[in-house]
Amino acid sequence: MTKQIDFQTDPTKYRHWRIDYDGDVAMLYMDVDENGGLFDGYQLKLNSYDLSVDIELADVVQRMRFEHPEVGAVVMRSGKDNVFCAGANIRMLGGAEHAHKVNFCKFTNETRNTFEAAGGESGQSYICAVQGACAGGGYELALACDYIMLTDDGSSNVSLPEVPLLAVLPGTGGLTRVTDKRKLRRDRADIFCSIEEGARAPKALEWNLIDEAVPNAKFDDVVAERAHEFAGRTEHTGKKGIALTPISREITETSLTYSTVKVDLDRKGGMATITVFGPKEAPGDIAALHTQGAEAWVLRAARELDDAILHLRFNELELGVVILKTQGDPAQVLAHEALLLDNADDWLAAEILLYWKRVLKRVDLTSRSLVALVEPGSCFAGMLAELMFAVDRTFMADGDFEDDARPDAQVILSQGSFGRYPMSNNLTRLQTRFLGTPEDVDAAQAKVGEMLDAQAADALGLVTYAYDDIDWEDEVRVFLEERASFSPDAMTGMEANLRFAGPETMETRIFGRLTAWQNWIFQRPNAVGETGALKSYGTGQQPVYDKRRV
Amino acid sequence: MTKQIDFQTDPTKYRHWRIDYDGDVAMLYMDVDENGGLFDGYQLKLNSYDLSVDIELADVVQRMRFEHPEVGAVVMRSGKDNVFCAGANIRMLGGAEHAHKVNFCKFTNETRNTFEAAGGESGQSYICAVQGACAGGGYELALACDYIMLTDDGSSNVSLPEVPLLAVLPGTGGLTRVTDKRKLRRDRADIFCSIEEGARAPKALEWNLIDEAVPNAKFDDVVAERAHEFAGRTEHTGKKGIALTPISREITETSLTYSTVKVDLDRKGGMATITVFGPKEAPGDIAALHTQGAEAWVLRAARELDDAILHLRFNELELGVVILKTQGDPAQVLAHEALLLDNADDWLAAEILLYWKRVLKRVDLTSRSLVALVEPGSCFAGMLAELMFAVDRTFMADGDFEDDARPDAQVILSQGSFGRYPMSNNLTRLQTRFLGTPEDVDAAQAKVGEMLDAQAADALGLVTYAYDDIDWEDEVRVFLEERASFSPDAMTGMEANLRFAGPETMETRIFGRLTAWQNWIFQRPNAVGETGALKSYGTGQQPVYDKRRV
Repeated sequence: MTKQIDFQTDPTKYRHWRIDYDGDVAMLYMDVDENGGLFDGYQLKLNSYDLSVDIELADVVQRMRFEHPEVGAVVMRSGKDNVFCAGANIRMLGGAEHAHKVNFCKFTNETRNTFEAAGGESGQSYICAVQGACAGGGYELALACDYIMLTDDGSSNVSLPEVPLLAVLPGTGGLTRVTDKRKLRRDRADIFCSIEEGARAPKALEWNLIDEAVPNAKFDDVVAERAHEFAGRTEHTGKKGIALTPISREITETSLTYSTVKVDLDRKGGMATITVFGPKEAPGDIAALHTQGAEAWVLRAARELDDAILHLRFNELELGVVILKTQGDPAQVLAHEALLLDNADDWLAAEILLYWKRVLKRVDLTSRSLVALVEPGSCFAGMLAELMFAVDRTFMADGDFEDDARPDAQVILSQGSFGRYPMSNNLTRLQTRFLGTPEDVDAAQAKVGEMLDAQAADALGLVTYAYDDIDWEDEVRVFLEERASFSPDAMTGMEANLRFAGPETMETRIFGRLTAWQNWIFQRPNAVGETGALKSYGTGQQPVYDKRRV
Repeated sequence: MTKQIDFQTDPTKYRHWRIDYDGDVAMLYMDVDENGGLFDGYQLKLNSYDLSVDIELADVVQRMRFEHPEVGAVVMRSGKDNVFCAGANIRMLGGAEHAHKVNFCKFTNETRNTFEAAGGESGQSYICAVQGACAGGGYELALACDYIMLTDDGSSNVSLPEVPLLAVLPGTGGLTRVTDKRKLRRDRADIFCSIEEGARAPKALEWNLIDEAVPNAKFDDVVAERAHEFAGRTEHTGKKGIALTPISREITETSLTYSTVKVDLDRKGGMATITVFGPKEAPGDIAALHTQGAEAWVLRAARELDDAILHLRFNELELGVVILKTQGDPAQVLAHEALLLDNADDWLAAEILLYWKRVLKRVDLTSRSLVALVEPGSCFAGMLAELMFAVDRTFMADGDFEDDARPDAQVILSQGSFGRYPMSNNLTRLQTRFLGTPEDVDAAQAKVGEMLDAQAADALGLVTYAYDDIDWEDEVRVFLEERASFSPDAMTGMEANLRFAGPETMETRIFGRLTAWQNWIFQRPNAVGETGALKSYGTGQQPVYDKRRV
C-alpha cells in the first residue's frame, strides 16, 4: 500500500455515493462500487467501505456545508437492497499495514465528527434511515447522525459485531457513542457489543439504539416527514452556495505547491515544512466574499492546509517532524479574519470559521511532532496564530536578523483565539495551554490586536523560546535533530497525552481512549496474527486465540 | 516469570522500605535491596523498583491508614545517598512479558492513587522530600504526593526520561499528572518529557514541577517543619491503630480458601469463581468493632477479596472470566455496613468504608470479564450489592429453585450505594449505570432497605437477566462458554471503554488514555524489539527505530 492517496475529489468522480437534492432536504445514497476500492486485493461487497469511500463521504459532507447551505436535513441511506452498510471492509483491514489502519480510523472518525456537529453548528442535520443490515462501521455511521430510523421489517437490524466476529473494537466511535451518546446501560452495552446478530427494531428502540422504529410499508413517507421536520428547525431560504472549485496543487518528489501553502519534504532529515502564505487585500465586504467564493484566500488557505496535512499523514509516514511557518502581512490576515468575525451571522462567513476550527483540530490530532517557527516576515496573526498553540513547541525570532530584509517577527492575537476555534476538549488552545493559570488567558486577551515582538510574546507565555539571530539557527537545528532521533511511537503516545489537558469530551475520548485501545488491539496476534480473527475471517477457519488476559 | 506472586507481606519482611514513626509524622525511607527483586536476571540498582518494591509500598500505605491513624504526614525520602529513585527497573521491564508489564503498571498506579487520596480522605498527607536524582517512576512517586520538596544542591533533579531514553511513556500517571495536576504549560511539558536530564530546583520550581526548593544545608529542618504543618492540619490525637494481622489463606492447585472468600479455579473452562461468604452477627457498637479490629468480618472480607483479585490478575492469566457470588444472610451484611455508615466519623469505620471503595475500584479495573450470579442463599446487600454493578453482566435467580433449600435470591440496597463507593470516574456505580436516566437512580434509592426479588430487581434495572429454575443453568452456561470463546484482547479493550461512561477524572484518564497508549507502545518493536530501546538500554548499543509514524 504505497501508492499516493489523494483526498481531492468531486461529485463527477464519485463511485460510492450519490445525492438527490430536493429543496432543503438531501437524500444521500451509499452505493459502494465493489470494484472501486483504493487498493487491490479486496472487493467492497455489501456496502463495506475502505478509505476511498470515506474520502468521498468527507467531500460530500464538506460540499453540503459550502455548496448546499439551503439543505437543512441530509438523509443517509443505502442504495442497495437488503443491506445498509456492512462496515469497514475486513479484507482491507486484514491486509493493511498498522499505520494505514490507524490513519484510516482517524480520518473516518474526523469525518463522522464533522457531520455529527453539522446539525448544531449549521442547522444541517443528518438522519440515518436504515433498511437492511447496518453492521459495525455501518452502525457507527448511524451513531454519528442526529437521528436514527430503522425499518421494522423483522430482519433489518443494527449491530456492532466487531468483538465476536473480528476480535477488534467498534473503533470508529462506536463504543464511546453507545455509552456516552446513546447512554446504553452498561450491561446492555456489553450484550450489544458481544453479539453478532445485533438488535432489530423493537429491541433497538427499547434500548435506545435507534430513535424511531418505522413500519416498512410507510418507511419512505415517515423518513420524508422527519427530514422535513429537521430541515424546518432552522431557516435555509435565501442561502446560495458557492462552488468548491478544484484546489491548485503541484506535487513533486520534494514538495507540494498550492496557491497559498507550500510543503517542503526533507526525507533525509525526516521532516516536512509547511509554509502558509498570507493574503493580499481582504474582500471589501461580505458580498465580495460571496463573490470570491472558493477563491477567497481565507477559504483557499484552509482547504490547502487541510489537504497538505492529510497528504503528510497518509503518504509521508517517515517525516516525523512537521514544521509550520507563515509568510506575509499579519495585518492582512487579520483583515480577512475580521471580515468573518464581523459577519459571523452570514452563513458563508460562519462556515469558513467552522472550517478553520476543523482544520486546526486536524492539526492537533496529527501524530507528528509539530513545531512552529515564527520567523522574520511571518504572519502568525488571527487564525494563523492558533498554529503556534496547536504545535508542541514554538520558536520565535527575536529582533533584527542580519541580512534579512523582512520585517522582524511579530505575532498578533485576535478575538478569534478566544472562542472561535476550540479544540476537541472544547477549550480554546490558550485555555488548554494555561490550564493552571487562567489569568494568563486574560492577559493574552488584553493584548488582542497589538503587535507582539518576541520579548512580549515570551513574557505572555505564547511562545516556547525567543532566540536572536546569533542563537536561532543552532537552537532550531539541535531541536530538530533531537526530535528526529526519538522513537516515533513514544512521540505518538506522548503527544496524545500532553496535547489534550483538562476536560474530556466524546471527541477526546474517541481519539484518546477508544483509539488507543483499538491501536493496541490492531497489533495483537489475536487480531492480526496468522491465526487471528482478522486474518481468518471468511476463510472458514476459526481463529485461534492466546487466552492470556492482559 | 511464572512463579506465584504473593501480595501479602508485613514490616518484618520488608527488604526495600523502612519507617521511623515520631508522633504524627512518619519518615518513610525507600532503600531498595538490589538483590531483593521478584525475579532473577536484574538487580534493583539506584533505588529502581520492580513489583516486589511496590507490593511493600502498597502494604506500607495500607498499614499507615489502619495501624497508624495517629500519623498526619508521611515523608517519603530515599535511604540512599545521591539518588532518590531511578524509577522502574529497566532490565525487569525489558525482560518481562507483556501481560506482566501491564499488570505491574496497573498495580503501581493503584498504589499511587491510594496515597494520593490519603490526604483528602484521611488527613494523612504524603510529602516527597527529594535529594539526589528522582527519575521516571521515581518522579511519578513524587507526583502522586501532596507536596514535593527538592533540595537545591546544584545536582538533585526531577526528570521523566522515559521517552528519550527508553522509548516508552511515563506511564505510572506521569504524563497525566504533569498536565492535569501540576498543570504544566503544554510546550514545557513537551520539553520536560523529552529531556534526560530533567530539571534542578530553580527551574523545577518555576515550572511548578515541585512545590518547594530547599537549600541543602537546611533540608532536614525544612522537611520536618513542613511535615508538622501538614500533620497539624487535621486532628490525630486519640486515634489508636489496629493491627492488620495476617489473613488466613490456603492455596491449592484448584482453589484459594480464605476465611470469608473462596476462589474456585476452572482452568479447563477458563474461569474463576469468587464466593464471598457473609457475616454472622455484627459488632454491637463501634467500640466492639475496634476491639475486633482485623478480625471484624467487614475488614477481613475486604482484605481477602482484594488479595483474591490480585492473585487472579497476576497468577491466573488464562482465567478470562471471573464469576462473583455471595452466600449468607443479607441482613447481617447490612448490619455490618450500617455500623460503619452510622459511625462514619469514627476513623476506623471511615477507613473500612474507604477500603471497600478501593477494593471495588480494583474490581472495576480488573481486565477480566466479570459476571455476578445472584443465586438462592446469596447476600448481595450493602457493599456486596455493589459487586452486581461492578460486573459486566448480572444474572439473578428468579423464585424458588427445586431441591434448593436456601432462601430465594434477594437483593437489598443500602444508602452506601448512593455515594460511599464511587468509581474512578467519581460517579456511583448506579449513576454510571443509569447515565441517561438519572430518575432510575432515584427509583433505586427509594427502595433502600427493601428485599428485592428477581422481578423487582429486574424492573429497577439492577440486573441484566432474571431466570427461573428451568432456564438458569442453560443460560448461564451458554453465556460463560460464549465469553470464553472471545478474543481476550478484544474483551480487554471493550471493557475498558464500556465500564467508564460519563465524566473523566485523572484516574480514568490514567487508566483509560495513558495506560492504553503505554500498552500499545509496550508491544511496538521500537520499544521491545531486538533493536528497541528497552532491549538495547545499557548494552552500549544505540536503539534502531522504524521511523514510520503511526
